[in-house]
Amino acid sequence: MLEKTTRMNYLYDFYQSLLTPKQRSYMSLYYLDDFSLGEIAEEYNISRQAVYDNIKRTEAMLEEYEEKLLLFHKFQERGKLIVRIKDLLKADSTDTTTIIQKIAELEKLD
Amino acid sequence: MLEKTTRMNYLYDFYQSLLTPKQRSYMSLYYLDDFSLGEIAEEYNISRQAVYDNIKRTEAMLEEYEEKLLLFHKFQERGKLIVRIKDLLKADSTDTTTIIQKIAELEKLD
Repeated sequence: MLEKTTRMNYLYDFYQSLLTPKQRSYMSLYYLDDFSLGEIAEEYNISRQAVYDNIKRTEAMLEEYEEKLLLFHKFQERGKLIVRIKDLLKADSTDTTTIIQKIAELEKLD
Repeated sequence: MLEKTTRMNYLYDFYQSLLTPKQRSYMSLYYLDDFSLGEIAEEYNISRQAVYDNIKRTEAMLEEYEEKLLLFHKFQERGKLIVRIKDLLKADSTDTTTIIQKIAELEKLD
């Protein structure tokens, strides 16, 4: 569950601009502010089931956007490469060839 | 016009997965294969006006996605930083601090 929450937080971060204001409100209360479905229902004066359905649909939309655009995936890959480049730089390596290789891999991720 | 074509080619590249198959066909014939509106109309047996309207709508959609997700903008910014990092590396600079700074700027673009 924690893993799913983390993933949804990232997907929400990347794709929130493609959601409707209502979807954004529910998702942000549920995932960022840790409200329960019941609390959100009360806040908006709708049924718990309606909140649940909306959040489930939004989660599916976020996964669909990720499948199409891979922003979270590329973010993770870039992150790994950047850690590697920093390590090489910190090691005061004169191996600039490897660093340039890693940078070329970074560019390919665009 | 050339500038617009280049921009549309990039936006198409970044967001084509969010378009419908029909939108993709028209856009790819018009922008990548340099077909005229008339030629596309003939190919699909529809009016030139219908092709024109579809392409205009798709262009507007691509600009809207870019406004929301900034993928092309970030791609350009990352590109500039990477050129700068490569220059620093090639100059055999021992100034790793500046390189690490540039890499931190890269990370902020995600």
